[in-house]
Amino acid sequence: MTIDAPSIHVRRDQNHLAWDPAIEPVASVASGDVVEFDCLDASNGELTAESTTESLATLNFDRVDQVTGPVEVQGAEPGDTLQVDLLEFEHADWGWTANISGFGLLADEFPDGFYKVTRLTPGTQRAEFWPGISLPLAPFCGEIGVAPAQGPLSTIPPDVHGGNMDTRHLVAGSTLFLPVFHPGARISMGDGHATQGDGEVCGTAIETPMRVRVRLTVRKDVHVTGPEFIAAPDPHAELRNGSRYATDGIGPDLMAAARDAVKRMIDWLVREHGLEPIQAYLLCSTAVDLRISEIVDQPNFIVTAYCPLGIFA
Amino acid sequence: MTIDAPSIHVRRDQNHLAWDPAIEPVASVASGDVVEFDCLDASNGELTAESTTESLATLNFDRVDQVTGPVEVQGAEPGDTLQVDLLEFEHADWGWTANISGFGLLADEFPDGFYKVTRLTPGTQRAEFWPGISLPLAPFCGEIGVAPAQGPLSTIPPDVHGGNMDTRHLVAGSTLFLPVFHPGARISMGDGHATQGDGEVCGTAIETPMRVRVRLTVRKDVHVTGPEFIAAPDPHAELRNGSRYATDGIGPDLMAAARDAVKRMIDWLVREHGLEPIQAYLLCSTAVDLRISEIVDQPNFIVTAYCPLGIFA
Repeated sequence: MTIDAPSIHVRRDQNHLAWDPAIEPVASVASGDVVEFDCLDASNGELTAESTTESLATLNFDRVDQVTGPVEVQGAEPGDTLQVDLLEFEHADWGWTANISGFGLLADEFPDGFYKVTRLTPGTQRAEFWPGISLPLAPFCGEIGVAPAQGPLSTIPPDVHGGNMDTRHLVAGSTLFLPVFHPGARISMGDGHATQGDGEVCGTAIETPMRVRVRLTVRKDVHVTGPEFIAAPDPHAELRNGSRYATDGIGPDLMAAARDAVKRMIDWLVREHGLEPIQAYLLCSTAVDLRISEIVDQPNFIVTAYCPLGIFA
Repeated sequence: MTIDAPSIHVRRDQNHLAWDPAIEPVASVASGDVVEFDCLDASNGELTAESTTESLATLNFDRVDQVTGPVEVQGAEPGDTLQVDLLEFEHADWGWTANISGFGLLADEFPDGFYKVTRLTPGTQRAEFWPGISLPLAPFCGEIGVAPAQGPLSTIPPDVHGGNMDTRHLVAGSTLFLPVFHPGARISMGDGHATQGDGEVCGTAIETPMRVRVRLTVRKDVHVTGPEFIAAPDPHAELRNGSRYATDGIGPDLMAAARDAVKRMIDWLVREHGLEPIQAYLLCSTAVDLRISEIVDQPNFIVTAYCPLGIFA
């Protein structure tokens, strides 16, 4: 793949910890320019390939989910749309996945911290997550956002300005549209993920430092009110949508249904594949996809969790 | 595809209107037998290829979502699991899609009834839904269930006994597991869909009469507490997961987020593809997939609606 040389490179130490229009841009580019963002992992570089579960105890949560930027795009005005062509994601040779106490869909069922490292071989499409379980890699950034209408806002919840969307389909080849709230738009990126399931249920993916190239274009002719995007073809469409084991959560509340679906999937992974429950939970976060099967048959709706069978050796 | 000859054929007039253990089986088969269910469409045959929006006004809602059966499987006991191998779905040469007043995810935004017929050519993989918009066909049954622990229950909401799951991945080649609550399990099927999006957002798919063949097997070695299944490879994996337009709904409530995502998708279909809003809404129900992108970044979660670009000519 030939990638245009970037106009500028944003360093990993040029990061910030809130979505806030008061933060001054670190650089300014013309519409159509290519920018390279060098992003620390979501732990702000505190967690490493040598860290352990004990390391989570001293993690500085005030520094997590920092984002690199912001970059001003000349000519962007409130009411415009910023087009972000996602050109390339280059992950490191390792990544981490953790259960962080008090965080995640099943925080009550998994109260204890847990940390694991996955080795990632650059240029390969798969990585062994647990013995005999090989995940398809599809790197993307959890965080892509512009300066919000008002701030400061935490970088943890996403909102109409983008931010922590944790959307696994925003891979290379996709094009994201974000509303512009302030002159220059002021885009930042971060939170590299080597792969993830729809839902990111334990709260972390395979977290990794990421070098990203994007093309930034001001669109005066497009008007969006929140994130919209052209998703590239799923790089692992056949595996992700091939034979899958599926578990249903059913009921009047979609959140409770999602929890039930994931709990049933964990039960299946434990009984059929011999995983420990915490191993199964982390696997759900990195490889299992949550879909809404039906949202109309009142009073009961269905969330289904899908685990691709192609990940098992 | 070679399909085993069915042991029995269940006629379309052998149907019932509630999930209820008090309903006597219409037939009894051995574990491992193949059964053919002949199913009326969800309107109980009241709506036809000649019906119009006016026909909805006189539709007898007390008769919708009837199911064909029940069939007793010898040897099934409470605590067992009924394995349903979905062998073949044969749809009619037409189907209907409707907005039914008061029903559907956006019932408040689309208060008026609307009815359309889609021509389905047997043996083809695609059908024109709106001019220039061709949908991939992937027939399945919205309703597959066993006698529930207690009844009678309406056939509209699904529950742990299955029922109106409206899950588009339950196509031929998939294997469904349902818990058994009563001797013989007593399975029924109905609600044929020629194709559908994840979510079935307007409340109807391409509804069609369906002839179904399934193999029914009692599993003493499997214990499920609700529907679980092995999903066959998506028959249109590349199209469904190829280039897609995607819209986000973001917020603390997944139901509201799903509504926002679908509303943004309707806006896009109207402005980019010139559809009327009601046309776009019905298209979302038959072709657009709802995924939960992230369910952990409190307080805001994301539901994303995905429209495959391959459906546009």
